[in-house]
Amino acid sequence: MERKRISESTIHRLSLYLRTLAELDADGQATVSSKELADREKLTPAQVRKDLSFFGSFGTRGLGYPVIELKDKIARILGVNRTWNVAVIGVGNIGSALVSYKEFARQGFRIVKIFDNDQRKIGSNHKGIQVSDFKDFADEAPEAGVEIAIIAVPGPIAQYVVDDVVRAGIKAILNFAPVNLRVPADVYLRNENMSMELEYLSFAMVNNHVQKKTRRTV
Amino acid sequence: MERKRISESTIHRLSLYLRTLAELDADGQATVSSKELADREKLTPAQVRKDLSFFGSFGTRGLGYPVIELKDKIARILGVNRTWNVAVIGVGNIGSALVSYKEFARQGFRIVKIFDNDQRKIGSNHKGIQVSDFKDFADEAPEAGVEIAIIAVPGPIAQYVVDDVVRAGIKAILNFAPVNLRVPADVYLRNENMSMELEYLSFAMVNNHVQKKTRRTV
Repeated sequence: MERKRISESTIHRLSLYLRTLAELDADGQATVSSKELADREKLTPAQVRKDLSFFGSFGTRGLGYPVIELKDKIARILGVNRTWNVAVIGVGNIGSALVSYKEFARQGFRIVKIFDNDQRKIGSNHKGIQVSDFKDFADEAPEAGVEIAIIAVPGPIAQYVVDDVVRAGIKAILNFAPVNLRVPADVYLRNENMSMELEYLSFAMVNNHVQKKTRRTV
Repeated sequence: MERKRISESTIHRLSLYLRTLAELDADGQATVSSKELADREKLTPAQVRKDLSFFGSFGTRGLGYPVIELKDKIARILGVNRTWNVAVIGVGNIGSALVSYKEFARQGFRIVKIFDNDQRKIGSNHKGIQVSDFKDFADEAPEAGVEIAIIAVPGPIAQYVVDDVVRAGIKAILNFAPVNLRVPADVYLRNENMSMELEYLSFAMVNNHVQKKTRRTV
């Protein structure tokens, strides 16, 4: 029940903390203060302490949080203390890159199936996985224990693909196609909007430009 | 000055609205209500109206917002009513996929330079662009008018690369390497954390699982 209250932005910050804690652990650092975590993520120490308070109080005042323990707690709450079986649908540029992206496996997201509808790609081998025909998705995905589907197909066909994925019983979908997809309420859908962060940068630069001009004029 | 007050999450929602408005425009829809925009993004109409109030009031009660006008206004505030010159550094799996990703160009982000430090890749052609030696970045990037650098190099070397990019005078950086990077305060840095949305899905599934179990037990 407690977990239900965690907001989307808190979950995203937990992902950031997890990455930082993994780096600190690799560097052999045993404890971390809320201030250090805050500085690294450009947050306030109060925000960090609030986020981590969801796990109960276990940081020691003056000593900070034990890195490994905090990392494990966050991994558990994010559900990445286990392995998830993932299917990638579409082996174009983005799909191929995702299949080769080692970080996913490191985080517990194991790509076990690849699907495409292009006859020239079906049967070809990507990182040891033979590309399946997408028309066999409903049979082959459950057989392989697929729990998460990554959609990396062109925008115009993405809704048809996601409809088939939902019909096959998949409850978690990550969409890389640059379109808004509709899924039933019991299916979790997240969108990876590759342009969003570039748009943030262009916003920042235009905005900065305006501010500078304002300062100069006033 | 007005733009300064816009929060990070508002900027991200503007990106979402922009994508949806582009779809509506392509479908020939002339007006859109705050409710329709809200439904598509799983937000409340009040949130949408609040976000759009930054642009002054120009929606008509009962008729909604004019799609093209709203799209153009958001594009202008996000700074994507113009073209930005982008350099991709690192043509591994992710870098190559980004170079081929047509959506960037459609949003005004034009990849004009590609850099790598691998002698086997330098000089090779990716989508009509010859890969340059990264050691020439400080000369070639400004020459080509590069305004945004995308870092797609392995984690362990990312900080060295970003240091060189900053020294060359680039003020906007999008990082795909799975590490936290340090940049001076006057440089905009955004991170594309590819695992973050997968972690959100695993969180949702674990959480749902717990909820179901709770319901069943109680």
